Order: sequence, then C-alpha cells, then structure tokens
Amino acid sequence: MRMVDLIKKKRDGLALSKDEIEFIINGYTTGDVTDYQMSALLMAIYFNDMTDEEITCMTTAMSQSGDMIDLSAIQGIKVDKHSTGGVGDTTTLVLAPLVASVGAKVAKMSGRGLGHTGGTIDKLEAIPGFKVELENDEFIKFVNESNVAVTGQSGDLAPADKKIYALRDVTATVDSIPLIASSIMCKKIASGADAIVLDVTTGDGAFMKNIEDAERLAHTMVRIGHLANRQTMAIISDMSQPLGNAIGNANEIKEAIDALKGEGPEDLMEMVYTLGSQMVVLAEKASTLEEARQLLENSITSGAAADKFKEMIRNQGGDDSVVDFPEKLPQANYIIEVPAKKTGVVSKIVADKIGVAAMLLGAGRRTKEEEIDYAVGLILNKKVGDSVFEGESLVTIQANRENVDDVLNVIYDNIEIGDIGEEPVLIHKIITE
Amino acid sequence: MRMVDLIKKKRDGLALSKDEIEFIINGYTTGDVTDYQMSALLMAIYFNDMTDEEITCMTTAMSQSGDMIDLSAIQGIKVDKHSTGGVGDTTTLVLAPLVASVGAKVAKMSGRGLGHTGGTIDKLEAIPGFKVELENDEFIKFVNESNVAVTGQSGDLAPADKKIYALRDVTATVDSIPLIASSIMCKKIASGADAIVLDVTTGDGAFMKNIEDAERLAHTMVRIGHLANRQTMAIISDMSQPLGNAIGNANEIKEAIDALKGEGPEDLMEMVYTLGSQMVVLAEKASTLEEARQLLENSITSGAAADKFKEMIRNQGGDDSVVDFPEKLPQANYIIEVPAKKTGVVSKIVADKIGVAAMLLGAGRRTKEEEIDYAVGLILNKKVGDSVFEGESLVTIQANRENVDDVLNVIYDNIEIGDIGEEPVLIHKIITE
Repeated sequence: MRMVDLIKKKRDGLALSKDEIEFIINGYTTGDVTDYQMSALLMAIYFNDMTDEEITCMTTAMSQSGDMIDLSAIQGIKVDKHSTGGVGDTTTLVLAPLVASVGAKVAKMSGRGLGHTGGTIDKLEAIPGFKVELENDEFIKFVNESNVAVTGQSGDLAPADKKIYALRDVTATVDSIPLIASSIMCKKIASGADAIVLDVTTGDGAFMKNIEDAERLAHTMVRIGHLANRQTMAIISDMSQPLGNAIGNANEIKEAIDALKGEGPEDLMEMVYTLGSQMVVLAEKASTLEEARQLLENSITSGAAADKFKEMIRNQGGDDSVVDFPEKLPQANYIIEVPAKKTGVVSKIVADKIGVAAMLLGAGRRTKEEEIDYAVGLILNKKVGDSVFEGESLVTIQANRENVDDVLNVIYDNIEIGDIGEEPVLIHKIITE
Repeated sequence: MRMVDLIKKKRDGLALSKDEIEFIINGYTTGDVTDYQMSALLMAIYFNDMTDEEITCMTTAMSQSGDMIDLSAIQGIKVDKHSTGGVGDTTTLVLAPLVASVGAKVAKMSGRGLGHTGGTIDKLEAIPGFKVELENDEFIKFVNESNVAVTGQSGDLAPADKKIYALRDVTATVDSIPLIASSIMCKKIASGADAIVLDVTTGDGAFMKNIEDAERLAHTMVRIGHLANRQTMAIISDMSQPLGNAIGNANEIKEAIDALKGEGPEDLMEMVYTLGSQMVVLAEKASTLEEARQLLENSITSGAAADKFKEMIRNQGGDDSVVDFPEKLPQANYIIEVPAKKTGVVSKIVADKIGVAAMLLGAGRRTKEEEIDYAVGLILNKKVGDSVFEGESLVTIQANRENVDDVLNVIYDNIEIGDIGEEPVLIHKIITE
C-alpha cells in the first residue's frame, strides 16, 4: 500500500477501506506517513467528505492509536458528556455531581486546552486544594464509591488525533465535519464511557456557525457512537450568546454551586435538565426523560446534588466548604460595572467576542504556557431579550488590574441594545440517530 | 501574512493575490513555508483551480525563484519548443537544426528526467563525443554563430518548481492543469526564450488523456506566455500511438537524421513541418506559415538541414560523420523481429505501454541513478491503419540481451490487430490564445 495512491483515491471521491484507513492512521502515528502526505489527504477529505463507515474506521483507528482506558472495574453504565465548545459553558460542572447524585456513574476525563476560559479541570482547580491529576486506581475507586470523579486526561490518549489535530490547525483543515466528528469521538471511545451525551453548540460562540452544519455533525457523531457500540445522543444548542451569566473560572464554579442549589440562571438550568435527563436515561436510572428530570429536580431541592458536589470535592482533596461559602473561592481585586449607554432591549451578545474579553482579563490561555487567573472574569447582568435602562450595569468585570479599557471596548462593541430583542431558542433539536 | 490563511482562502474558492502567491513561492523556496502547508495548498488548488492571473503570478514567482538565464547576448528572436511528453518523440532533435538552418535562433535547454527513453540531451549523447554540458559563453557563441545549440539545464533554474514538483509527485497533486501549466512555463520563461512553441500531446502515451484537458492546458499555457510577454502558441497532437517509428536513443538520432534528409516517417515529418513552421514565423524568418513550410522543405531538399545538424554536432564536440554513416551510432547486439500472429489491420498501439517495453530493454531511466543503454530500443514496422500479414514483423527489437520474453509480452499485449484500423488524426488543433 502506498500513501500517494490512497490520497489519490480520496481525491477522486472514492471511499477508503478499513485496511487503508488503518494503514494511514497507524503510519501517521509512527511517522511512516509524512506530514505533507497527511495534510494533502486531509484537504482531500475536506473536499470529498467521508462515508459513515470511513469515519467510524478512522475514529476507531485513532482511538486505538494509544492507551485505551479500561473502566471495566467500575460497576454500571459509565456515562460521559461532551460539548463542542462555547463561552461560559458551566454545564459539565453542574452535571457531573447532579447526575451522580441520582445514581448515574460519571467517570469524567477532561482536557485543559486553550480558550476564552479554562477547561472544566482548570475551573475545578479554582477550588482550594482540588486535585485533578488522579491515579487510575483512585479515579475508579471514587466513581465506584461516589459515582463521580473528574480527572485530567492521563496517559497517551489517542496520540494520532493529537498529531492530526495539530496538523489541521496549520493547514486550514479544521472545519471538516468528518474530521471534527472523528476527533471528538475517538477520545470519548478511548476514555472508556459506555454512553455519551453530546452537546453540539451552534452560533457565533461555537465551532458550527449554523444549525444545518451542527445537525450534520451531531448525526455523524451519533452514528459513529452507535457503530462503536456506545449509547449516544446529541442535542443541538444555541451558543449565539454565552450560556449562563458567569464567564471565567472561580465565577463559573460559583454559578455551578448556585445551579446545584436550584438558583442558577434560567438558560443554564434548562441545559442542565435537558442534558442531565438524557444522561440519567442512558445510565438506566430512569426509564423516561420526564422521570429522569423529576429525579434531578428532587435531588436539587433536597440538597443531595449540592452534597454530591461536596463529596466529590472532598474526595479530590478540595475544600468543600466553598459550596456553602462561595466567597472562599478566589476573588478579583477590582469589580467594575459596565453601564448601558442607552435604554432599550439587549438584542445581541456576540458570544465569542465576549469570550475574548474574558481572556483579556486572564481567564483563559492563548498558549499552553500561560497561567490562568482563576479570580477574574465577567458576569453578564443582562442577556438577550432583557430590558435595560441607561446607566444600569450590563456586565460586571472581575479584574486583577485597574485599567480595563481594552475589555470595556470589546464589551461595548459586542453587546447591542435595540428596540426589540428576542430570547433565542436554547435547544434546537435532539438527535438520537 | 500567514500561510494557513492563504490555504483557507484558496480552499474557500477565492483567488490569491500577486503578493500572496509571491509570499508562498518565496517562502517555500527558502523553507519558511513547510511541505505540509504547501501540500494542503496544492490539494486545494487541485479542487478549486486558479485564475489565469493566479497561474501567471505563480509561474513568474517560480521562474524568479532561482537563476534567470540571460540570453540578451544572442541577436534576434530566440525560439524554444516544448512537448508535454510522449513516446518516440524525436521532433526536437529534428527541429533544432532544421529551423536553425533557415535562420531562426534555437537556444535549447533540456533536462534529462525519467521516462521510457532518455530526454533530448540523453539522445544526443548517443552520438560519439557529443558534449551536452556547455559553458554559458560557449552556448551563446554557438547560437550566435550557428543559430543552434542544445545544452543540459545549467545553474539553479526555477528551484521552487523542482521542490513543488517533487512534493506533487508524492501527494497526488500532479494532474492539475494550473500546476502543470505553471511548472512547464516557469522553466521556459527562466531559460530566456522570446518565443515558445508548445506541443501538447494527448492520448494514452501523454499526460493529458483527452482532448478537452489538453485544450485547457494549451490555452492556459499560451495565456501565461502572453501575459509574460512571450510569443506563445500551442498545437494539440495525438499521442495515442508512438510518434515516428523509433523508440530509444541512438535509433531516434538515426530517425532524426532520416527526417532531416526528408526520409523520416510520415507522421514525424508532418509534426516537424507543423511545429517548425510556427517556430519560423515566431522567429520572424517568414511572414506566413506557408512561406515558412516552403523554407523548411527547401532546406531539407538542399541538404542545408542535415548540414546544420553536422555543424551543431561539430560545435559540441561530436563525430558529425554519423549523419552520413548512422551505423557509427551505438548498435545493439541482438536484433529480434516480432511477427504478427494474424493477418489484419493494426487497430491500436498503446503508446505508453510500448514505451515501457523500450524501458525494459534499458532505453530509459526509472531512477536518477540508472544508466541508459543508447543502443537498445524498438522500431515500429507497422503503425495504426497499416495492413499486416501473419508472420510479418510488427516491431524490431534492438536488445543487448538474448532473452526478451518480457518485452515481447508487453508488445503483444499492446498492439491490436483487427479487421479495420484508421490512421489517427495527428494534429487536433492549433491554439494561439
């Protein structure tokens, strides 16, 4: 088999066989297939797409390119949740303890990555003492005993994907649905979950800018999951404006605690119930979505959800008193309100640009080396559809520097106030096949 | 400027600007642009094509990536001829002395390359003593005094093209008309010709398998030439069967000598007159094609053409007595006839496969390191449309080994004898814009 012939085959619109895809992925992992041949193939895939069978073969080959996490020592159905990314997306922080509190097993592996704010494990590190690097034994023990643990990605998980992703990033082959789908799913499959709930975000703050693309991506990933014998479903959610009100790290932990007490922002609560119900059903802790939702609501009302979060924090070495006293979380030195320049209705909050404003404060990393400032971030006091009076605070800036003119400019440029504004549809679709 | 953004631009179907193309070509030449980014761009070009302006910018940038040959010391219009390749293509060997004999200046630079037989300069090396590596001074002196010289490509001619071609070869991006056109034309432009006659071959033995593609390639190259201020025209010729009768090196020199004496095979003579007339008109040695053809015919009849070949051979250190005594050229040890297995009409001779048969004998190089055996090759005794009796010789094999069963098999597999056969149209079209 010669790589040049396989590139030509894909270039000419033909489907690659399982053997051919394994040859490519294994060869690229070992270095026998060169970067320049791989990038030519990726561009050919960008143009000619892949069949579901091809994507599944590619996903499987990538998931098998490194360590496969063995979670068989955990009893019951391990359920995982993945979001294709957004701004102020606090759902995982809420969902992990919440669905664990009704009996589902959540063995969550999460990356750090780059972005407007830290990833889930960075946010958890805002809790004093919280340890995200768990030994495999500990991780399994915590999930068995407490139903939940969150750990940084350990070992050599899907190295082929890591290498391909780095190449895509510099060769304009990121925005390809088969490549996005296989990249997400290979890590989910390698990390051992039995059931996967996918949140495919759409809008300015998301990877998929329109619903049609989001839907195709969702269908593709769900089909890959099924072909790989994973219970899989996806929801397509709105990310035209940030989700919830907090954008940062410590402030998102605070928001998650509020949500676990039933006091989170309305849109975040809705996302949590929708995704959480699906997870509970897939984990076979309820037989209908309605029943699942009732369980989750009861757990929040009874305090069981917040208690589960405390238990998870304690297990992982953190100070669980933050759940009752969130002021113990890192606090910013400067609190600056951003007053509305006119009276009206908020008509637009450009999610990714507001994310950039948070990053400017130090809430996220631009490069792997950068340190995150857990204390800083933004609180949106108004969301799309809310009325606002001139002078009323649109946003609260939590900063560790006095001059935040750069951040103010970005915020003013990306929040529009008009005569009318309509609350966007939060959940566009549920995809089960 | 970032390469990834330029790849994305081309991927999205937009045209690259002159500055952007220069950034890419210069960057790739120096190594600032990586192979893997270049190959992704090449694949995007394969799918999204390039405008004439883009191709011209790319051609110019590639021609300027290394040495630009300065032929200004040669008086008059320097005319060059290029073929996109074929099997048994002896035309350059005939045309160089022939058009020089009527006063046109032919300063021919030619490569060795890989193929079924050697390139033009390899074939000339079959002449005892003939020197193809000329100093620049000598080269210019010979053209000024004798109107003709043929030299190997000297210096660092279009290194960007060399690097890009090597990359295309292993990334399935060879068959792209803008890339083929710019690769051919950048070398023609860098090597200093004022006027360029292009022979775009089509059919089994050629790069362009059908006339439509050949026509697009021809138009593209002619327009590049014009935009680069070069008089340029192209003919589209048939290469479904080999041109002429000889396929090899010494035997093609012999065939060229025959042609210069007016005794070459009919199809070769027709190609020579057609291309030659165009060259003579572009060199302003005749004002019409008819007048040019008359000049060429007269030169052949008078012996001036053959004398010019002798002069060229003498200039370059070769034994010019081969023109009168071609048996002085290297001769093969074994002459083996290939008898027709039945009576009928030759209906097909698959050019590229017959080329492979010649290569099997040692007439061409598969790798740069291989040596060419000048003496070996094939003589086609029958061409498409010719009648043949069972037992009559279809092909004469000139070999330096006794057992040629492998060659015989290839020949029998690729010459068809049927009830009817039609002589193919030799010249499909003349493209001047």
